[in-house]
Amino acid sequence: MSALAVGVDVGGTKVLALAVADSGEIIDRERVLTPHATADYAGGATAQAVLEVVTALATRNNVELSDLVVGVGLPGMMSRDGVLVFAPNLPSASGADFAALLCSKDNSLRVVCENDADCAVVAEHRLGAARGVNDVVMVTLGTGIGGGIISGGELVRGRSGFAGEIGHMVVDARGPRCPCGGRGCWERYASGAGVARLTREAAAAGRLSNLVAQRGGDIDAVRAEDVTAAAASGLEEALDVIDEVGWWLALGIANLAAILDCGTFVVGGGLVEASTLLLGAARRHLSSLVEGSHARGEIHLVASHFGEQSGAVGAALLARERLT
Amino acid sequence: MSALAVGVDVGGTKVLALAVADSGEIIDRERVLTPHATADYAGGATAQAVLEVVTALATRNNVELSDLVVGVGLPGMMSRDGVLVFAPNLPSASGADFAALLCSKDNSLRVVCENDADCAVVAEHRLGAARGVNDVVMVTLGTGIGGGIISGGELVRGRSGFAGEIGHMVVDARGPRCPCGGRGCWERYASGAGVARLTREAAAAGRLSNLVAQRGGDIDAVRAEDVTAAAASGLEEALDVIDEVGWWLALGIANLAAILDCGTFVVGGGLVEASTLLLGAARRHLSSLVEGSHARGEIHLVASHFGEQSGAVGAALLARERLT
Repeated sequence: MSALAVGVDVGGTKVLALAVADSGEIIDRERVLTPHATADYAGGATAQAVLEVVTALATRNNVELSDLVVGVGLPGMMSRDGVLVFAPNLPSASGADFAALLCSKDNSLRVVCENDADCAVVAEHRLGAARGVNDVVMVTLGTGIGGGIISGGELVRGRSGFAGEIGHMVVDARGPRCPCGGRGCWERYASGAGVARLTREAAAAGRLSNLVAQRGGDIDAVRAEDVTAAAASGLEEALDVIDEVGWWLALGIANLAAILDCGTFVVGGGLVEASTLLLGAARRHLSSLVEGSHARGEIHLVASHFGEQSGAVGAALLARERLT
Repeated sequence: MSALAVGVDVGGTKVLALAVADSGEIIDRERVLTPHATADYAGGATAQAVLEVVTALATRNNVELSDLVVGVGLPGMMSRDGVLVFAPNLPSASGADFAALLCSKDNSLRVVCENDADCAVVAEHRLGAARGVNDVVMVTLGTGIGGGIISGGELVRGRSGFAGEIGHMVVDARGPRCPCGGRGCWERYASGAGVARLTREAAAAGRLSNLVAQRGGDIDAVRAEDVTAAAASGLEEALDVIDEVGWWLALGIANLAAILDCGTFVVGGGLVEASTLLLGAARRHLSSLVEGSHARGEIHLVASHFGEQSGAVGAALLARERLT
């Protein structure tokens, strides 16, 4: 019998673990809230949460921990040797050596750690929306933008394992400040935070008069969620904001297409789930933004197949590929 | 005896051919001017020039054409099957099927065609400034910006072979128009054309008063070459323009570092030869522009080892690797 593969995705709000069969079928799942308290040492609480969900799955499936292979996807710059060197959205774990925290002589656990979007692109490439496609980028639109790149069928990891930080590609050198220290990063425009910012701008510029009126004239009370909901019900002024976000989404995708010549982009994350109109808007703008588009084949923007499970599925697949 | 490898680099002004030994040693060379006249069919004149230099090298070295392996680097979007689908700087050859034009039953020539900067990065990776480095980007600064990417030791080709069009990464969404149809492409700033544009802007803004005075007060008469020459002799106002170009160069490199996690960037092309100060300026700005630079290893910006020969050397190496 081959080892049971478990994939764990550590997000900003929850830790999701899936037990994945050889076929890719999800046979069991477990989730807990992501702890954010600072422990005695960086990542201690996070590692405990990961061990908790993994142990729960092992126990329920009558498997020893030493018979598992475990992949863990983490939100931030993951080094090839298992250290989460920089994690702005999970500060309590930034700098933690997860390879060391998770594996001990006592538990004999076999673990691989990767960036969460790198895991997601592996899932989509092996079994999901980009099956059979050799050159693909996964774009996860959450608060920020995460990325995973497969080129020539291989995961692009880079020198230290940090490849795929596509949200911090600068697309507007004179644009707004980003928490990363830069200015005009892509994720200031085409992410959840981007919708919120463009919503504020549109409201202040008088372009969201209906939504502002619904909020009793309070410009600051109009939220990104109001825009995505109103766009879904066809309100023109809200559709214009979604169109603008889609233009920025297409702009960054066009950049990546020029650099990598990927023909498929898998888009996932909470923002796409909140606004199914966004992908259509990006598709409408893409061909006018890609260099030499007349000479290229069509570029496919597709929704994630695994949705919020893509990171955990991919983590399990990577564990099986690298550890068995 | 192994086949003799010939590498040909088709540039905007000249066609350079090198005969390269197994060791990488250049044992012979030949060059002609690039023809720009439109022949009866696209690329006809270019292909003739390539065959001319290749035949000259074969004859002089007492080798039959059929005993050669030939690599050809071309400036533009080269498809994997040898078609130059889009070549803004060589319009007379845009759309030409070079694999078909160069190989015939008569000559029995074995040929591989690639983008010129892709050839250059292969030369620098195998034998030049990035020897032993698995993740490297070649940045060629000419009139525009060309690029070649090696990730995990492998040339990144992309779906159709078009990867590496880094000059058309948009870094300033509201920036000046680019001949490609876009706006604010990186090559509007950090290329020869970029220096010319930033020179005009600086002169018009009164920031090049000494150089304008030297031109009898004619703002429009100050040229990019004046700035690079004056900077080399230490003129502060010219150094400021080079520093600005260096900032833009560093910005694009920071984007590529975030996306690909390359630790080494090899910079070549006419602009670097014209201004050796440019690389230093880019180095000064880089760490403040790269996301999470405190958590990364140092990013190395190095000058091309093979200089203007890098494309031809790399083309010969690719021919040997793929055809023998």
